[in-house]
Amino acid sequence: MIIVLEPKTPEKVIDELIIEVKEQGLDVHRSDGKAYTILGLVGDTSKVKEAPILSNEWVHNLVRIQEPYKRANKIFKPEATVIDVANHKIGGDEIVVMAGPCSVEGRDEMMEQAIAVKEAGAHFLRAGAYKPRSSPYSFQGLGKEGIKYMLEAKKETGLPIVTEIMSIGTLDEFNDVDIIQVGARNMQNFALLKALGKSDKPVLLKRGLSSTIEEWLMSAEYILAEGNPNVILCERGIRTFENYTRNTLDVSAVPMIKRLSHLPIIVDPSHAAGLWWMVDSLSKASVAAGADGLLIEVHPDPAHALSDGAQTIKPKQFANLMTEMDKIARVMDRHIK
Amino acid sequence: MIIVLEPKTPEKVIDELIIEVKEQGLDVHRSDGKAYTILGLVGDTSKVKEAPILSNEWVHNLVRIQEPYKRANKIFKPEATVIDVANHKIGGDEIVVMAGPCSVEGRDEMMEQAIAVKEAGAHFLRAGAYKPRSSPYSFQGLGKEGIKYMLEAKKETGLPIVTEIMSIGTLDEFNDVDIIQVGARNMQNFALLKALGKSDKPVLLKRGLSSTIEEWLMSAEYILAEGNPNVILCERGIRTFENYTRNTLDVSAVPMIKRLSHLPIIVDPSHAAGLWWMVDSLSKASVAAGADGLLIEVHPDPAHALSDGAQTIKPKQFANLMTEMDKIARVMDRHIK
Amino acid sequence: MIIVLEPKTPEKVIDELIIEVKEQGLDVHRSDGKAYTILGLVGDTSKVKEAPILSNEWVHNLVRIQEPYKRANKIFKPEATVIDVANHKIGGDEIVVMAGPCSVEGRDEMMEQAIAVKEAGAHFLRAGAYKPRSSPYSFQGLGKEGIKYMLEAKKETGLPIVTEIMSIGTLDEFNDVDIIQVGARNMQNFALLKALGKSDKPVLLKRGLSSTIEEWLMSAEYILAEGNPNVILCERGIRTFENYTRNTLDVSAVPMIKRLSHLPIIVDPSHAAGLWWMVDSLSKASVAAGADGLLIEVHPDPAHALSDGAQTIKPKQFANLMTEMDKIARVMDRHIK
Amino acid sequence: MIIVLEPKTPEKVIDELIIEVKEQGLDVHRSDGKAYTILGLVGDTSKVKEAPILSNEWVHNLVRIQEPYKRANKIFKPEATVIDVANHKIGGDEIVVMAGPCSVEGRDEMMEQAIAVKEAGAHFLRAGAYKPRSSPYSFQGLGKEGIKYMLEAKKETGLPIVTEIMSIGTLDEFNDVDIIQVGARNMQNFALLKALGKSDKPVLLKRGLSSTIEEWLMSAEYILAEGNPNVILCERGIRTFENYTRNTLDVSAVPMIKRLSHLPIIVDPSHAAGLWWMVDSLSKASVAAGADGLLIEVHPDPAHALSDGAQTIKPKQFANLMTEMDKIARVMDRHIK
Repeated sequence: MIIVLEPKTPEKVIDELIIEVKEQGLDVHRSDGKAYTILGLVGDTSKVKEAPILSNEWVHNLVRIQEPYKRANKIFKPEATVIDVANHKIGGDEIVVMAGPCSVEGRDEMMEQAIAVKEAGAHFLRAGAYKPRSSPYSFQGLGKEGIKYMLEAKKETGLPIVTEIMSIGTLDEFNDVDIIQVGARNMQNFALLKALGKSDKPVLLKRGLSSTIEEWLMSAEYILAEGNPNVILCERGIRTFENYTRNTLDVSAVPMIKRLSHLPIIVDPSHAAGLWWMVDSLSKASVAAGADGLLIEVHPDPAHALSDGAQTIKPKQFANLMTEMDKIARVMDRHIK
Repeated sequence: MIIVLEPKTPEKVIDELIIEVKEQGLDVHRSDGKAYTILGLVGDTSKVKEAPILSNEWVHNLVRIQEPYKRANKIFKPEATVIDVANHKIGGDEIVVMAGPCSVEGRDEMMEQAIAVKEAGAHFLRAGAYKPRSSPYSFQGLGKEGIKYMLEAKKETGLPIVTEIMSIGTLDEFNDVDIIQVGARNMQNFALLKALGKSDKPVLLKRGLSSTIEEWLMSAEYILAEGNPNVILCERGIRTFENYTRNTLDVSAVPMIKRLSHLPIIVDPSHAAGLWWMVDSLSKASVAAGADGLLIEVHPDPAHALSDGAQTIKPKQFANLMTEMDKIARVMDRHIK
Repeated sequence: MIIVLEPKTPEKVIDELIIEVKEQGLDVHRSDGKAYTILGLVGDTSKVKEAPILSNEWVHNLVRIQEPYKRANKIFKPEATVIDVANHKIGGDEIVVMAGPCSVEGRDEMMEQAIAVKEAGAHFLRAGAYKPRSSPYSFQGLGKEGIKYMLEAKKETGLPIVTEIMSIGTLDEFNDVDIIQVGARNMQNFALLKALGKSDKPVLLKRGLSSTIEEWLMSAEYILAEGNPNVILCERGIRTFENYTRNTLDVSAVPMIKRLSHLPIIVDPSHAAGLWWMVDSLSKASVAAGADGLLIEVHPDPAHALSDGAQTIKPKQFANLMTEMDKIARVMDRHIK
Repeated sequence: MIIVLEPKTPEKVIDELIIEVKEQGLDVHRSDGKAYTILGLVGDTSKVKEAPILSNEWVHNLVRIQEPYKRANKIFKPEATVIDVANHKIGGDEIVVMAGPCSVEGRDEMMEQAIAVKEAGAHFLRAGAYKPRSSPYSFQGLGKEGIKYMLEAKKETGLPIVTEIMSIGTLDEFNDVDIIQVGARNMQNFALLKALGKSDKPVLLKRGLSSTIEEWLMSAEYILAEGNPNVILCERGIRTFENYTRNTLDVSAVPMIKRLSHLPIIVDPSHAAGLWWMVDSLSKASVAAGADGLLIEVHPDPAHALSDGAQTIKPKQFANLMTEMDKIARVMDRHIK
């Protein structure tokens, strides 16, 4: 951490700042440049109190050097985290594919859809029982009932299941869910993250739609800090000025996470663009970029899906995509099938 | 709502779409342009199912005409909403100022700070008992204890209080709070919004840091739709590419909300820029732009504030600012003092 | 084009608007909805004067239906444009790779670098003679001399060359250049675009760093409208809030352009992230997404490159990348080698 | 400037980097932290070659401490720059207002409009002779003829004139223009900036629509570095995700520029929002935030303006606005009238 002082900062102010910082258990290296004097803080700067520094009128700038996340940081755990769920090793050589409808729509529909994605080669069944919707007038999901239907489909097909949690109060309903998803809008719902950190369930943590990679890793840190090491990151598109697509898939997040962290990262190409015809290209691009998995919306009849039909592909398209992605995966010494 | 069809869309497809839409209770006007055929949907389009339309491969685009919010919409309630809290009419001629420290730090500190902002002319005391922090290693607030100290300060000074809620489970603790704040990160925590909609407490709803004005009004709609009409909007800066400031104050949101909605809007200049020396300019700009109030961080000793010292001004600066803002308010036929 | 009128717009105003629009040669369909009356304009709306509409206080909104670009629009020219340069068919089955240093640094350096990229399999030599730099104190390029060295390298290696133009005054110097590049900062330098439209040289048009896809296609339209059909689009990363990467590669732009336009599109993975170690992943992702080519910075000694060393890979890394990209290309029934 | 090295960087690499940097005439302070070793570079770091550092695989990060602009930097010239144009002191106590139509439309129109804004109290006449338009099919301006009409209007009314230059080739036509405007799209047209730096005409430099404040000051630096000290900055809205407004006025840029630089800054509220009814609020907010002037689009008949009618106010509204802005200015010890 570096404190940059304004030109002509009085020596008295500098001395006081140095004392302030030393009392926090850090060493200080001072160097006087042409325009600025800078103070380098050495030691464990992750817990420095910034207020006394930033509110000082002689401080021009405060520059953090060290990433603020620790348990999520590759520096402190260089080997990749591989999460074993129902015999699928997420973060390993297999690229895992989670597929299914946006919402659980009913018992029969769920069963039919689960069988369809299973046949097309999916490894996990995904669907939403609780649905965050920007309008209070939209379908809000079947809730507890929806999870029940997913568990029945799991029993029938053998597919482990992934579904989203929206509030702490419902945590008990997720006991038999294989992976609990935290949606983009809840990425900084810290109370929820802490509760999940106390569980040992794998958590699929979606990136907030305008969260930096650093903030995303800090949210992972909330879960890790409570003792749950099983975090899977999921890139799902970020908000930019471009509006031909609903969001902008940040494919660079894949190699960036691989460099900064040991956690596995998957991609959701359906929410990224919000356009069914783009899922194919974005899925292949994600595999080529090094993603550990994909989360894809698939529905036998997108026109009559209860939500997000615009970004949903059909089982047949999905099956073809699985075949093509497997070929690309093999170029990277990985595999899907 | 307008459906734009691809060139050469088969008549059969058009007919089916028209039937689909009519079954939803809408009228359809068709017109054939040079490149595109378009279908205009007439009626209450706020509940149209978009999936059957958007997932149709012959649909080039779907254009919404009507704003998706209803109760928050000025068209359906032209007169301004004025919320009366402890004899302050928010949305009226008085510009209300809510001031205080970022966090509640202790009983004595709270009392001292409340007296200081009261003397400087604040109308409300604001402080955080529950604190959303991007790092799990930062101070997380005093919680319930913090609210207790605020209530004691209210008793002593007579200032009504504003404080933030972070999860539904703590709602009971807010019974004596005058205005419940929903923070930027929870703007789309729909479960929380619904719970607050069932209360009759005034809700101060901050704009999410990358939420559009439309999404913000839709979140207000969640509260209004449950029966609580007392929503105060709060602009607090949005995320942009600029990084000299922490966020970019969207001052245009003030006149825009005044045009689209009947709800009052206030501004938080402290979080907007994250820089104490900028609070003065941004506060004045907000008053000049027509804001109904301000939410300002004030602390007697920002250097030792437990959070956000960098954006906090001292009581003396605040008192001067109150005087200058009052002069500007009077140019607009409003007043602060 | 749809005009949305405010509720209770006087009939007189509606009549006048209809007359105004009809005088511009368009038909008008009126439909009266619950909240709004809307007027649908039918005919060639690409030249409608919007001022009389938008400045009318009763107009709530004006919605464009038709894309404003025509010659760049796939609707008006469904077959893909394939540009033949020195026996490479850009937009065809071959994925073309343009490689070389950021800047031309001298005669010997250019020759050495050209030979290196040729041996590694590049199809074109790219380098900058004129360099746009954000600081006036940075190296500004060798200019005319730089182009001369590139032409010598072309003679020696047979590689056709690509280099950037920065102002109309230097157009004569580009007579023997194979592809003229327009940089991101000049994407809306309309005077320059018009001048290039009058030439018949292929133009590589980079996307502005905060330009929408629509604006980008409109800039292509400037060139096409003057008679030059040879435009190659180049995605090079857009500006977002994320700052771990210099820009955010918008990989979705590739399938989007393929859907909207007939023009070929290539990707520049070097400028996108600004990080040499990310070029590998982003290049593969671009090929998998369907790009027609790549523009990659390669330098034998990035540490001593005169510009952009941080995003430059070495010839050996580049040769490996070519091999891997070729394998991915073949999955898509295309090829690089 | 600080080099942050990866953990376990070999000593040999560190030694080589230190030599590399010292050869560039800088001192190096090394300090070894818990996770990282950092090297602090001391001296004039504005010309450091970054490539040898950034392309080194052991370099984790490079952090700049000093702002890259020098002549524009308040540190090197603490007193405010006041530019005297036709007896108006831009950057002084008077807040200068430049008003007029978006485009010059003809001799008679120009004359009538100039008289109208003069009567309403404007200090300068603004209009566009050369018009940058995103569509090649839109009105492109009267060019040279337009400047002639503006000069005639100047002669008649005494109002000094401001108009935009689009390419170096037309520089001679601007000899009698009082202030030359560089538009947002040309903010990084470095060839143009250099040419204007060699003149001594005041230059009104608009912020690029997605340019950071730092890049904007670097573009000012291009002009200053060539010897022309007369640069007026103009904030005109930046591109964000919000699309209810055309751009987002960054009102914080006003106090930020005042803190970082000695150059005057004005605001263009017309382009910022693109909405005529918002000009009033944004103008007042700009004055309250401390702007040195305003650039406002005014037209007697916005409905028939040849461009940008949607954001243009009428002379009567403008006259009222002048009166109100003057009152706000006087609160800040400044004045308009």
